[in-house]
Amino acid sequence: MRLSRYFLPLLKETPAEAEIVSHRLMLRAGMVRQSSAGIYVWLPLGLKVLQKIEQIVREEQNRAGALEVLMPTVQSAELWHESGRYDAYGPEMLRISDRHDREMLYGPTNEEQITDIFRRHVKSYKDLPLNLYQIQWKFRDEIRPRFGVMRGREFLMKDNYSFDLDHDGAVRSYNAMFAAYLRTFSRLGLRAIPMKADTGPIGGDLSHEFIILAPTGESAVFFDRGFDDLDPLADQSDDPDAATLHAIRERWTSLYAATDEVHDAAACPVPAERLVTGRGIEVGHIFNFGTKYSEPMGATVQGPDGQMVPVQMGSYGIGISRLVGAVIEASHDDAGIVWPASVAPFDGGLINLRAGDERCTGVCDDVYAKLGVLGLDVLYDDTAERPGAKFAAMDLIGLPWSLTIGPRGLDQGVVELKDRASGEKAEISLESALARIAERTGTQAPASPEALAG
Amino acid sequence: MRLSRYFLPLLKETPAEAEIVSHRLMLRAGMVRQSSAGIYVWLPLGLKVLQKIEQIVREEQNRAGALEVLMPTVQSAELWHESGRYDAYGPEMLRISDRHDREMLYGPTNEEQITDIFRRHVKSYKDLPLNLYQIQWKFRDEIRPRFGVMRGREFLMKDNYSFDLDHDGAVRSYNAMFAAYLRTFSRLGLRAIPMKADTGPIGGDLSHEFIILAPTGESAVFFDRGFDDLDPLADQSDDPDAATLHAIRERWTSLYAATDEVHDAAACPVPAERLVTGRGIEVGHIFNFGTKYSEPMGATVQGPDGQMVPVQMGSYGIGISRLVGAVIEASHDDAGIVWPASVAPFDGGLINLRAGDERCTGVCDDVYAKLGVLGLDVLYDDTAERPGAKFAAMDLIGLPWSLTIGPRGLDQGVVELKDRASGEKAEISLESALARIAERTGTQAPASPEALAG
Repeated sequence: MRLSRYFLPLLKETPAEAEIVSHRLMLRAGMVRQSSAGIYVWLPLGLKVLQKIEQIVREEQNRAGALEVLMPTVQSAELWHESGRYDAYGPEMLRISDRHDREMLYGPTNEEQITDIFRRHVKSYKDLPLNLYQIQWKFRDEIRPRFGVMRGREFLMKDNYSFDLDHDGAVRSYNAMFAAYLRTFSRLGLRAIPMKADTGPIGGDLSHEFIILAPTGESAVFFDRGFDDLDPLADQSDDPDAATLHAIRERWTSLYAATDEVHDAAACPVPAERLVTGRGIEVGHIFNFGTKYSEPMGATVQGPDGQMVPVQMGSYGIGISRLVGAVIEASHDDAGIVWPASVAPFDGGLINLRAGDERCTGVCDDVYAKLGVLGLDVLYDDTAERPGAKFAAMDLIGLPWSLTIGPRGLDQGVVELKDRASGEKAEISLESALARIAERTGTQAPASPEALAG
Repeated sequence: MRLSRYFLPLLKETPAEAEIVSHRLMLRAGMVRQSSAGIYVWLPLGLKVLQKIEQIVREEQNRAGALEVLMPTVQSAELWHESGRYDAYGPEMLRISDRHDREMLYGPTNEEQITDIFRRHVKSYKDLPLNLYQIQWKFRDEIRPRFGVMRGREFLMKDNYSFDLDHDGAVRSYNAMFAAYLRTFSRLGLRAIPMKADTGPIGGDLSHEFIILAPTGESAVFFDRGFDDLDPLADQSDDPDAATLHAIRERWTSLYAATDEVHDAAACPVPAERLVTGRGIEVGHIFNFGTKYSEPMGATVQGPDGQMVPVQMGSYGIGISRLVGAVIEASHDDAGIVWPASVAPFDGGLINLRAGDERCTGVCDDVYAKLGVLGLDVLYDDTAERPGAKFAAMDLIGLPWSLTIGPRGLDQGVVELKDRASGEKAEISLESALARIAERTGTQAPASPEALAG
């Protein structure tokens, strides 16, 4: 994408209303703009990150055997009366009257709606297990929305719902999601630690929060040093059996981990030399709640013995829009955002230091085309801005690498390749730079080297 | 996808509430379920089609140089007071009060919100032209929602907004969208005819509807036979100039075309022998409305002469959820849906005629794996249903081709490859069938034939 044709409204000033670093950086980098309190417009750069996170979450859900559906944002209140949550949910639920004065609401979560779909179609244990997910906007009317997309009112969430005949099956489904979450956060470049959690208004007896570590996270967290040795991708085979999934959960929950809300230094079972203190952000929450919804809503299935029993359910959430902020909290420096490659809005950047110079622009245009042939999505700063502003903008938006080409370097046969995370710069030949880029992005170089040398 | 692990709740009975064929088929094929009046849950099969249509629309918007953003579904009413449309819009607008009793609404369209984004960030003609699009759910509280997803209350729409310095620029943007729409509908396997349209509540003086032809369409349409000779992909180069775009619009608007609402047989300029009568469905609408919103909302830019002028705008919509129904209206038969390959939920189907037979199942599993290696997304009916039900289900859901493998055929060294559209069946060897599938789906066969024979 040529920057001259892009819409990237960077802010020079740090917006006063933004209290945390991710909110400040998302505003400064032209990723989002507030529409009204706790409600945001996603501008092109921010939307690309949101979509990349969404796609990784989707792939890991599919891999775990969950099936994607899409429920509407606006629901009838009837089902919530059935479950008994309509009155219980409180003022966070956005209640709506339609033109016929029917009670509607903007879904804050979807246990009722999915249970209704289930009970209309599934009658037998033979159709189980079933796990349905969606990625959809939700609304919770927070009394005081803050922290940008980290605690917005309208937010994008992946929520899914598992259905099993019995408790063992439900635990297997729970463990499968537990393992999928470890994979998901790992692919997002995050370090996640699962912690035992209260179940709150969702209900149930088995629940974990996934907290990712971020230096500027919202809560203090305390955990066993042993987490350093756990690999979130270990034993993550395709189609794992129940024992493997159980072992994964055991391994990750046998070590102590707690947020400051529940951590009690006096009662902590971990010796001081093994206890790590950090900060974290909740990005996922999983629940097994048995028959809490299936019983009042009559979602029953026939077991192998012919008896009808209420189906065992769990629900599982990942805050996708929240993750955009959380990744930034976990990965930034004084100059701006430092995107993990998997969610970076562009694979890298290309800077033309002298847009007015014909030779320099010719080389840049050519390199831009070659990077495209490599399958790379590159932001090409082809504007007439001064070099300092271009470098600052590139650092602010945090693409993993940037390639800078200027007339003076070309005279000497070199370009500059910068790694955003380390800040390292290499003055090397254009061929070497392209080869390094191809290597770090795992891109196949075209069959013949001449194609690159062009 | 193995059918035994999929969620595909087919209906045997035709639902009484469904008045039109697409609604009936979407319910019967397990694509959607009604959540409340005019509001639908998208089940896995339906969602796949919705996402494919969405992706084609997105690719053609990107190709035309539009940039993707995402606006929230819930907006503050303030901007609508500014434009004067809050009171004008009427009861179709879903009005909401939040917990602080602020006036909010569920966006039925987004001219106000995008104009606000524009005026906050763009001040100079140098940043023009700009074209921003989004694919987002909208809500219009229809008094009598009907026809399934064809006239729902909550619906998915691509809407975009162009910004230009002057009228000539605005017309160029309009023509670019005109050309992009021709491409888009062609890629969806539809025949679209643009017709001059009233501008209604959006406003403006230049507007076209895109009507696709469908035997069971909602309106009668009348058009010049000359449309038969027009190729929607002609002259559609990358980055076309203004003259090329103008010529495309001229070519498509110089011929007579009208819906029954405006067609007057007595005044029709087309001689009877050149007039074609058909039925059609509106799936897109484009508007150039000049300064209707920029003027009251103060969205001005500085021109080259230093003067501040209100920006020239247009808006452009494609009903994405509506298109799922429209494609079915355009392409179905007595047995069910006949998907164009570009939007089919799966590339094709594989039927194991005897799931209990070890050899047959072994061959089917193997073929399923090979089709996966070819990069094909196949629905594999591995269930124990009887053959007749399997064939009927495959016809109902309308995948472009299906490959049927049974013990008797295997004895004779043949499988059956069926083309859904023509109904033609070929009893051929497995190798021939795989080669034909690879050919029709444009898939590269693996490097060595042995890999397939495997």
